[in-house]
Amino acid sequence: MTKASLDIVAMGDAIVDVIANCDEEFIRAHNLPKGSMQLLTPSQADELYAAMGVAREMSGGSAANSMAGVAAMGGTAAFIGQIAEDQLGLIFEHDMHALGVRFDTPPMLDGPPTGRCLILVTPDGQRTMNTSPGASHELSIEALDRELIASASILFLEGYLFGPTKPRAAMMEAIKIAHAANRQVAFTLSESVCIAGRKESFAEMISSGGVDLLFCNEDEALQLVERTDLDGALDELAANVPTLVITKGAEGAIGIEKGERIAIPAAPVSYVVDTTGAGDLFAAGFLAARCKGASLERCLWTGAIAAGEVIQHYGARPIADLKELVKL
Amino acid sequence: MTKASLDIVAMGDAIVDVIANCDEEFIRAHNLPKGSMQLLTPSQADELYAAMGVAREMSGGSAANSMAGVAAMGGTAAFIGQIAEDQLGLIFEHDMHALGVRFDTPPMLDGPPTGRCLILVTPDGQRTMNTSPGASHELSIEALDRELIASASILFLEGYLFGPTKPRAAMMEAIKIAHAANRQVAFTLSESVCIAGRKESFAEMISSGGVDLLFCNEDEALQLVERTDLDGALDELAANVPTLVITKGAEGAIGIEKGERIAIPAAPVSYVVDTTGAGDLFAAGFLAARCKGASLERCLWTGAIAAGEVIQHYGARPIADLKELVKL
Repeated sequence: MTKASLDIVAMGDAIVDVIANCDEEFIRAHNLPKGSMQLLTPSQADELYAAMGVAREMSGGSAANSMAGVAAMGGTAAFIGQIAEDQLGLIFEHDMHALGVRFDTPPMLDGPPTGRCLILVTPDGQRTMNTSPGASHELSIEALDRELIASASILFLEGYLFGPTKPRAAMMEAIKIAHAANRQVAFTLSESVCIAGRKESFAEMISSGGVDLLFCNEDEALQLVERTDLDGALDELAANVPTLVITKGAEGAIGIEKGERIAIPAAPVSYVVDTTGAGDLFAAGFLAARCKGASLERCLWTGAIAAGEVIQHYGARPIADLKELVKL
Repeated sequence: MTKASLDIVAMGDAIVDVIANCDEEFIRAHNLPKGSMQLLTPSQADELYAAMGVAREMSGGSAANSMAGVAAMGGTAAFIGQIAEDQLGLIFEHDMHALGVRFDTPPMLDGPPTGRCLILVTPDGQRTMNTSPGASHELSIEALDRELIASASILFLEGYLFGPTKPRAAMMEAIKIAHAANRQVAFTLSESVCIAGRKESFAEMISSGGVDLLFCNEDEALQLVERTDLDGALDELAANVPTLVITKGAEGAIGIEKGERIAIPAAPVSYVVDTTGAGDLFAAGFLAARCKGASLERCLWTGAIAAGEVIQHYGARPIADLKELVKL
């Protein structure tokens, strides 16, 4: 096994967030999945966008946000994701490079435009995501940079992208490449992985030992193993996953590793503006700390601090000096 | 003279702001005009963008920001400006409509992309603007909606767009239409009007009584009349302009009208995040109040309150409930 030349390479949605404030009534009137994510067709997205208020645009994408965070904390990170050759694609690419994240997946020349996520933020700071994935879901095996994947200590995969067939195949291939190079595979269990059809193949991957580090929340854990008791679900998952991390929003997080189980509270924050990216930045902090050889507890704390920063402003990527905040 | 069916129609740059933070060293290293605006060629813009940090995108344009403000304060507003048929153009159009501003200038199908302004915000909250005007400077006489212009109480013109030849001709034509319908013409003297060649035609317009309401800052006033004494410059301008408004940043503003001269301080703010749009929102407040028949002093105060709101967050358009803040 050659020494890794990169900390983390991630695969995920390459999308730009379109963030607007709205009241609770807007969420109800448009039947939006408050606090959750739904996929929209292009025409549904146009319709919702027309109804939304003034917006700000900021690069997003779950695993992409995590890589932005890893780089901001001093880790070396790369990202694989599909943009189109358009203005939103350029914005996404710029923001990755501006953060020092290697990103050179070639843009698609024909096909759908760069994806966007219409994010509605209610007065309680909760975000409701409506994704028009566009080019993002066209990521194919051909777009994989095999050398890049083999060169990273950790391959980090985003569950949202495990939904659509083409990128799921690319992810399965990437896992093979990583394992062949004796690298670790980390997975964040976004909601869409838990949908029937995907759940089975994912559960199989876990039970076969294909995942070294799993991030999920309580709901996702219960859905994945089809149980109703959380402790039982965590035990079942922990039996197959060397490092299991459960995020609990305002209640903190739990880490389970080598028989050790550590719970930490959320980092204290003065106010919550927009919870978009909280989970992504938690993963970023955990992974960045892990790459520096930190303990399970330190990894959890670092995740909590990074998540605490991102919910105090609009947008899913850090603004404050995270390197200074987490002092890895 | 038929009754106006609209408060204000504005003509100005139709651009999207790309806002990033930077330190003082970045401003120096890239030789940027701190606190000011410069025009960039497309390749200069690409080069500066590549060097900039992570950015947020928000609709901008000086007079467009003012119309967003007028609508937010309960006035009826329309905007004429040139976008291309691309993603940034759609963003600009969406944000105008979301604020209730009528905007139906047809997008250009061939030609440069929608303009963008690369805005660098230093830790002191000062913004330095670098504009790649794109389609914005292609606004032509043919794009004017004559009925719309004739229907508004006030035609509001942005000095930045008075620079390039084609939109300047469109503005001159719009002034004729407005005057023929017995409407008022308001002008905001952005930096670029004071450049030799433009200054002469603008000074002539003023001396011939073509401008009913002029917004400018002290520097612009001095440059326009080529004097070094501010009082003399203001007297000279006030002799030809029925309502003269001089904005002085943190020092407040002065209004001169019918022999009356009123000075007000800036609105108190808790902190300054980003001064982008301060002048635009000052004009918005003044105009919105004027359309409700407010006194000179009330107009100045309303401008100050609107400007105070916009400098406390990123972006040049109001976020808080301005209608509630200004209570017109």
